[in-house]
Amino acid sequence: MKKTVGIIGGMGPKATALLFELIIDLKDAKKDQDNVDLIIMNRASIPDRTAFLKGESDKNPLPYLINEIKRLEKCEVDAYCVACNTSHYFKDEFTKASSLPFIDMLEETVKIVKIMEKKKVALMTTTGTMQMKLYQKALEKFGIEYLIPSDENQKLVMRIIYENVKANKPIEWDIFNKLIDSIKNDGADSVILGCTELSIVKYEKKLDDDFFIDSSESLAKAIIEFSK
Amino acid sequence: MKKTVGIIGGMGPKATALLFELIIDLKDAKKDQDNVDLIIMNRASIPDRTAFLKGESDKNPLPYLINEIKRLEKCEVDAYCVACNTSHYFKDEFTKASSLPFIDMLEETVKIVKIMEKKKVALMTTTGTMQMKLYQKALEKFGIEYLIPSDENQKLVMRIIYENVKANKPIEWDIFNKLIDSIKNDGADSVILGCTELSIVKYEKKLDDDFFIDSSESLAKAIIEFSK
Repeated sequence: MKKTVGIIGGMGPKATALLFELIIDLKDAKKDQDNVDLIIMNRASIPDRTAFLKGESDKNPLPYLINEIKRLEKCEVDAYCVACNTSHYFKDEFTKASSLPFIDMLEETVKIVKIMEKKKVALMTTTGTMQMKLYQKALEKFGIEYLIPSDENQKLVMRIIYENVKANKPIEWDIFNKLIDSIKNDGADSVILGCTELSIVKYEKKLDDDFFIDSSESLAKAIIEFSK
Repeated sequence: MKKTVGIIGGMGPKATALLFELIIDLKDAKKDQDNVDLIIMNRASIPDRTAFLKGESDKNPLPYLINEIKRLEKCEVDAYCVACNTSHYFKDEFTKASSLPFIDMLEETVKIVKIMEKKKVALMTTTGTMQMKLYQKALEKFGIEYLIPSDENQKLVMRIIYENVKANKPIEWDIFNKLIDSIKNDGADSVILGCTELSIVKYEKKLDDDFFIDSSESLAKAIIEFSK
């Protein structure tokens, strides 16, 4: 029996659609039936993760996320993942709520950093992911040095995520390029695109060199590997 | 409570990913939560529809389709659709198996033909959809004249669907253009792209003029309308 992977997404939908396409492209099937079986919960209505973690909103996304995990259990998936880096703050609650195998996007991304033998990796994530130190903790486990952006640059990262990608507006390339220049000036040998909206930036600009380590692509590879 | 639409797809996955993107693009949300809540069953393993309808395979896709409808019921969707024109051959069985509202891609597509006041529409579909007269019957209901391809041209349509799009190979534009020329020479004022793989051809070539009536786009509009 073919394995099925559940994806909890919609945070945002464009990023979930990109993850879906990455899974198809990286699988490179020759007929429909060679592809991966997926159940994609595109739950756009899940409350904003960073707003809650920063205390700017009292709408807790956790019950919504748990509800989707329960639905995926009913659908008999073999494993699940959450296509939103910030949501991984709740990982312990996910694993308490369900015994379904969980494919961890952050761990899969840091594994790629390790495999690529990067020594000094910059972080581009939401303010929620940054303040909760989700990637910092994962990198420290592997003893990998990292750089975090200045408060001013973090505001610019959030502007690209929320005012460009999530708002369906054009990406402000001058701002993105300024951020990458600043990261390179600080001596980073790579940057983790640790927000799925930044994966869209990567694919819109075809940033294919290995300076960019993309959380969505890392997750897509792990999903394909699991489904075999 | 926001409405949720279930999509039974994976036939093929690329076409389901395109439908997903069309829903996002046509909705043009300003934040995640403005988007449509969807549950996408990307069931790539569903047996080939045309092969079964032509008697070339004894693997019946119907039980697989019904199984996904039952899963969507458990997920409490408000309506569902099937992102595969050929699968609409089984529509009566769907509606017998479930009382969930069904959004019919073929009806939505023919509605657009009617709204656009097309008088002579050519059909581009799988051989299964063609032989079962799925679009012919829908068009006759509205009293719209249609043209069906010669056996030779039908083979070429299938070659684009199966040997190009589903096989992840480049589209043979010379063949596609030859087919469109032949349709225009026969006096058609439009063509229904009545196979979701042909929607991919439309979007890859940015065929935006209203000669092309796309079943995936028609379904995306109906999903957005329902979700309001």
